[in-house]
Amino acid sequence: MSELRHDPIQRRWVIIATERGRRPSDFIVEPESTETQFCPFCEGNEDKTPPEIVAIRDNQSARNSRGWSIRVVPNKFPALTIEGDLNREGLGIYDQMNGIGAHEVVIEGPRHEIDLAEQPLDKFVKILSVYQGRLQDLMRDERLRYILIFKNHGSVAGASLSHPHTQIIATPITPRTVSLELDSAKEHYDRKERCLFCDIISQETKDGIRVVTNNDKFVCFTPFASRFPFEIFLAPIKHCHDFAEEPPDKLVHLASSLKDILLRLKRSLNNPPYNFVIHTSPNMRARGRRLTHWQTLPMDYHWHIEIIPRLTRMAGFEWGTGFYINPTPPEDAAKYLREIMDKASDRELTRQAAV
Amino acid sequence: MSELRHDPIQRRWVIIATERGRRPSDFIVEPESTETQFCPFCEGNEDKTPPEIVAIRDNQSARNSRGWSIRVVPNKFPALTIEGDLNREGLGIYDQMNGIGAHEVVIEGPRHEIDLAEQPLDKFVKILSVYQGRLQDLMRDERLRYILIFKNHGSVAGASLSHPHTQIIATPITPRTVSLELDSAKEHYDRKERCLFCDIISQETKDGIRVVTNNDKFVCFTPFASRFPFEIFLAPIKHCHDFAEEPPDKLVHLASSLKDILLRLKRSLNNPPYNFVIHTSPNMRARGRRLTHWQTLPMDYHWHIEIIPRLTRMAGFEWGTGFYINPTPPEDAAKYLREIMDKASDRELTRQAAV
Repeated sequence: MSELRHDPIQRRWVIIATERGRRPSDFIVEPESTETQFCPFCEGNEDKTPPEIVAIRDNQSARNSRGWSIRVVPNKFPALTIEGDLNREGLGIYDQMNGIGAHEVVIEGPRHEIDLAEQPLDKFVKILSVYQGRLQDLMRDERLRYILIFKNHGSVAGASLSHPHTQIIATPITPRTVSLELDSAKEHYDRKERCLFCDIISQETKDGIRVVTNNDKFVCFTPFASRFPFEIFLAPIKHCHDFAEEPPDKLVHLASSLKDILLRLKRSLNNPPYNFVIHTSPNMRARGRRLTHWQTLPMDYHWHIEIIPRLTRMAGFEWGTGFYINPTPPEDAAKYLREIMDKASDRELTRQAAV
Repeated sequence: MSELRHDPIQRRWVIIATERGRRPSDFIVEPESTETQFCPFCEGNEDKTPPEIVAIRDNQSARNSRGWSIRVVPNKFPALTIEGDLNREGLGIYDQMNGIGAHEVVIEGPRHEIDLAEQPLDKFVKILSVYQGRLQDLMRDERLRYILIFKNHGSVAGASLSHPHTQIIATPITPRTVSLELDSAKEHYDRKERCLFCDIISQETKDGIRVVTNNDKFVCFTPFASRFPFEIFLAPIKHCHDFAEEPPDKLVHLASSLKDILLRLKRSLNNPPYNFVIHTSPNMRARGRRLTHWQTLPMDYHWHIEIIPRLTRMAGFEWGTGFYINPTPPEDAAKYLREIMDKASDRELTRQAAV
């Protein structure tokens, strides 16, 4: 019989259809076409993007020219733009704001064919460090309440360019999913004076059944109420509300953990399309009334990364209700991902770290 | 500049990227393959589905044989099953229930190639009447809090069989999206003693800019904060909380309105994949604590149908935040849909009604 499971963070029920249990081989992932169209993100085409915001470069190289290893540029077709004042307006029963915000692209490397999972560990750390730098910079803007860092890998996951990149969108509102998490976390803290996420991480670590990997600093597991097959939750073991505040030595552990899980997904599911999203603290410096509710936020919120391989299609049921049917129990998904390279991973990470 | 718009029902912000404004012709809809594999829903294959729950049949025909025009059967691979007692269980910080519920399929006709939009009006009314009958029957089960009626048209929208059908899933919980709507509606009613949906319908009808069609009883418009291009909201003009309670004469107007909008979408977007979901009252007879909050529900909730053509892919940003970027302003979408067959529609509906 299938099970209904409740996610205490998002307050969402999920149907885990145990009788349909699906193995990785049941998901057909069509290889992405590798046609080599012109790519504005490749080295040598720096003039085809808007001018760079920051870049990691050789000492000699000039801005917006060759000789970079990571480049951050504004999105050429931004959903939100940074210029102007934020105006709020009522339209009868509705509310409206103008589209103030930021929309940036982190180009993860000059080479088109090296995806994030394949980046050497030291380079991976630098990419995470660039994420942090953009967060810190954008959080200086008081108009921006939330800065979202996310990656679309593969066209099925929404990537319009196949050159490996990450997107950053900064918005003048706190998005609903994040608001719901903040509310759940605050309510738990108000009752128990403990972090909801710390409690979940503690229980998952003890159970072990859904843990895929862990190191000294990070744990990676399939959520109890996973909405999607092979969904992943990755979080620091030690409480921290803000990804931007993690010290450099922890980024090394994060890079190792994130690289490890991306390689496991790539091998077990044949390079699936995926999304990851960093859920971190809202901008505590932003203006706005919600700030008064946030006195306990550094204690009650816990940043984390959600990774979702795009293996199934959302149907009307999911869209209409926010209620999901997942054909792969997360315990099975964790087992596959643990076994795929229990030995290979050590060798791989050692090799990559040495590159 | 793009706009941020707030949906007062779902309390969700949407980016309307006006500068990317997309016309119907910008959305490439790949035609579904029409290969004629074996279909368990076609006439003559009645023994390939579980035994029928109800059917509209010729007087002479036997159950589970030829001679039907609409057939309701249990889903062969149900996400939830009706047998057993509902057990709730705590697992440390988590909550779990066993998968009690119902999962049914309404086969809309014996012929594989006639989709819902093409059904003659009198047949369309009968299909809606079958939906109502199933709702009324399932609501007798006190374990079931919500009964969701939805349609996946096209494989991109999640339909695993192309033979036209609708699905019904009855669940022992109220799904999150519906809960959020109920909360918004109740809060609005508590403050104003008016229905939130009636207020929205009144404003939209006066504005007219987002209205696609209306008749005496139903209005059909693109929501102010549409998440998706050509998203549609269809609702009765007169307040009613429960689709199952609509009288037969209103079903004729509903069929006319729903058929009209489905034909408009089909013509303007080249038979796009789509989902529709009927949002109606939770089961007021169900056991459970939430019922105490529902004293005003018949006054504050207003049933409606959401239709979503599946033209864009959700990317990490949307999944991670519940915050959408819509490249087609709803005012433009409404204009295209109004113009596509302002004259054709009258002829078409007259013709179809005469079939």
